[in-house]
Amino acid sequence: LNQVFCSIITIGDELLIGQTIDTNSAWIAQQLNTIGILVKHRIAVGDNKQDILYALDEESKQVSLIILTGGLGPTADDITKPLLCEYFDTEMIENREVLAHVTKIFIDRNRPILEVNLRQAMLPKNCQVLFNQVGTAAGMWFEKNNVVYISLPGVPFEMMHILEEVGLAKIKAHFVTPNIIHRTLVTSGEGESFIANRLIDFEKQLPNTIKLAYLPKLGVVKLRLTAIDVEDVLVENQFRKLQNLLSNITVAAEDIELEKIVFNLLQQTGTTLSIAESCTGGLLASRITSIRGSSKIFKGGFVPYSIESKVNLLQIPESFIEQYNVVSSEVALAMAHNCMQQYNSDFALSITGHLEKQETETIAWIGLSSKEKSVSKKINLFYDREKNAVLATNTALNLLRMFILQR
Amino acid sequence: LNQVFCSIITIGDELLIGQTIDTNSAWIAQQLNTIGILVKHRIAVGDNKQDILYALDEESKQVSLIILTGGLGPTADDITKPLLCEYFDTEMIENREVLAHVTKIFIDRNRPILEVNLRQAMLPKNCQVLFNQVGTAAGMWFEKNNVVYISLPGVPFEMMHILEEVGLAKIKAHFVTPNIIHRTLVTSGEGESFIANRLIDFEKQLPNTIKLAYLPKLGVVKLRLTAIDVEDVLVENQFRKLQNLLSNITVAAEDIELEKIVFNLLQQTGTTLSIAESCTGGLLASRITSIRGSSKIFKGGFVPYSIESKVNLLQIPESFIEQYNVVSSEVALAMAHNCMQQYNSDFALSITGHLEKQETETIAWIGLSSKEKSVSKKINLFYDREKNAVLATNTALNLLRMFILQR
Repeated sequence: LNQVFCSIITIGDELLIGQTIDTNSAWIAQQLNTIGILVKHRIAVGDNKQDILYALDEESKQVSLIILTGGLGPTADDITKPLLCEYFDTEMIENREVLAHVTKIFIDRNRPILEVNLRQAMLPKNCQVLFNQVGTAAGMWFEKNNVVYISLPGVPFEMMHILEEVGLAKIKAHFVTPNIIHRTLVTSGEGESFIANRLIDFEKQLPNTIKLAYLPKLGVVKLRLTAIDVEDVLVENQFRKLQNLLSNITVAAEDIELEKIVFNLLQQTGTTLSIAESCTGGLLASRITSIRGSSKIFKGGFVPYSIESKVNLLQIPESFIEQYNVVSSEVALAMAHNCMQQYNSDFALSITGHLEKQETETIAWIGLSSKEKSVSKKINLFYDREKNAVLATNTALNLLRMFILQR
Repeated sequence: LNQVFCSIITIGDELLIGQTIDTNSAWIAQQLNTIGILVKHRIAVGDNKQDILYALDEESKQVSLIILTGGLGPTADDITKPLLCEYFDTEMIENREVLAHVTKIFIDRNRPILEVNLRQAMLPKNCQVLFNQVGTAAGMWFEKNNVVYISLPGVPFEMMHILEEVGLAKIKAHFVTPNIIHRTLVTSGEGESFIANRLIDFEKQLPNTIKLAYLPKLGVVKLRLTAIDVEDVLVENQFRKLQNLLSNITVAAEDIELEKIVFNLLQQTGTTLSIAESCTGGLLASRITSIRGSSKIFKGGFVPYSIESKVNLLQIPESFIEQYNVVSSEVALAMAHNCMQQYNSDFALSITGHLEKQETETIAWIGLSSKEKSVSKKINLFYDREKNAVLATNTALNLLRMFILQR
């Protein structure tokens, strides 16, 4: 088994004091997995020379690929490039291609170019430059004692671009890697421990080479099988067993978000959606519109946050709201129905509820309208404001998914 | 200087294959900072006994506090508790208080209790239990060779609860810590390198004990001073110098998000907001409504995603949209104006644009209406769909902030 291991080292005090959440490592790990490389560690260190050097030394004993991100920006708190020169026993030289590119960026944006910007073209002599077409900080590829070191900017957009355009292909060409297969089953409607209880026998018969993991997320539990150098057909068999065992709660047989599933269903059936969401305040609409091409299926939304706006804009009589309570099946259904009519869509989803803990019960009602029929669903909210909003939107999306499939 | 260093070790294959983004570490680091403890490393390791043990050994050589998160759930892929028993040379015993609590949770939620759930009450004999009031996985406190080890569940909600309720106070009582001061200036309107150029002299005169860091974020750059055991007045002097140098682009003299600043301003002036956002699809409204108490200042929103909905719901004549183009100052202003009227709010913000790269220019227009006057602003969008949405909403919030301040 030619297992290739990688460590990801992220550099920056902002990671250690918690001012920034590290999204780079997760993305890099996903990409490496697709080309058969496993991440062994992820380490965050501060803007501190000794700590970075120590991490480089330690990790190079354990892995054959080290990816560093951060510390390459134009400002003075960046110390990575001089440190790399020292570690790889080299000096800085000006790279003409990078210099021309940096200059062009500033000319194109019609902004003055500063000394600090020009310094971005100074790079360690013995690195291979990984060109950054979307920014000024170039990526760098070093080799030392059979370990590859890749240094990338910390700006996610630029880091991703460099890896996608040149980095991953170069890594793949350099290493001999095994075949890693991940298969993910997305479920909704049952908790982690209940699913685990249904899978006791399944786990017992699972070969050692295939691992099962549970990933619970507010109304959704993902189950992931991971296999390294196992024949496709064996993994596929196990995955099918899993699907059969959990068919009643299965949402998808791939790692896909609920909004994308709903988007696909609407697109395939040539239907459209509108949304009237009160307590979730735009979150449901923003999840749908985060998908490229959503304008084909999404007509638009209301965020009728006040009672006044439910009356004036959604034309639900005030007496009706008073009679049934603003958080009720009746009001949710009226919101969905009137939203569907106003936006002239095939379906409309609505949410009305309280995200903060209430003295009685903390709940939301979901409404769903179509031309043929309407349904509503009550959900209990156990968490904080932010998580309750995600739980409510997940429940709404899953309700629509099942509704379309059962039509 | 009694510097206390901490390492955060997060456990879980999902972190190494990139299926989960680690938000726990950032939150823990923030909390530790407030009580004078600095995070030296953050390490993510897989669900692998050898790797976890190696990380514990390595980190215990370098720090006096190690916080582990993850690996305590009820499902079979969790290996942390047996490993802790081995590492701290102890055995599992049943904790009655935890058992009673776990049982109560299931009774309260009216769900059957499973064997795996009951196992949550089995805990290493020599740990001090950090009680988890909001879940079934207890926290654990161990001491060995002058190092403190705290093991917490990976579910963010539960981890936070345990640290807030019992963990932080216990850490603070255990260690003698120095005074760490962070002061953050939030700016908007100028790029990182331009700000750095204005601060060359400031950085030169800054004492070694105070560090300056730049944190750029889509239309916003945060500048952070960090001082360890420096007199408050000295830090305050430096921070004031920084404020004076950047007064024209200063948004706030504390680490605060734009939506919270706008919320505060609206609340202080007793005014209300409504939002009509097209391309950002609900993101702006969801940022405002993420704030507790937002119903006091937010009347509601439209997401008029289609031209049809701009015509029918926002009552902008189709001929007007055709004449000026749907992405134009005129349409943005009409959206804001009509939104304000329909929601009967004091201010209305609007956004219309294209988040995906266009052949000509990729832009959005922001509109802002009040009873007295209206303004609009064009923004160039350089990034991908997701980041362009954040840039547009940041720009809209900052426009409203300045508008209210200049009234």
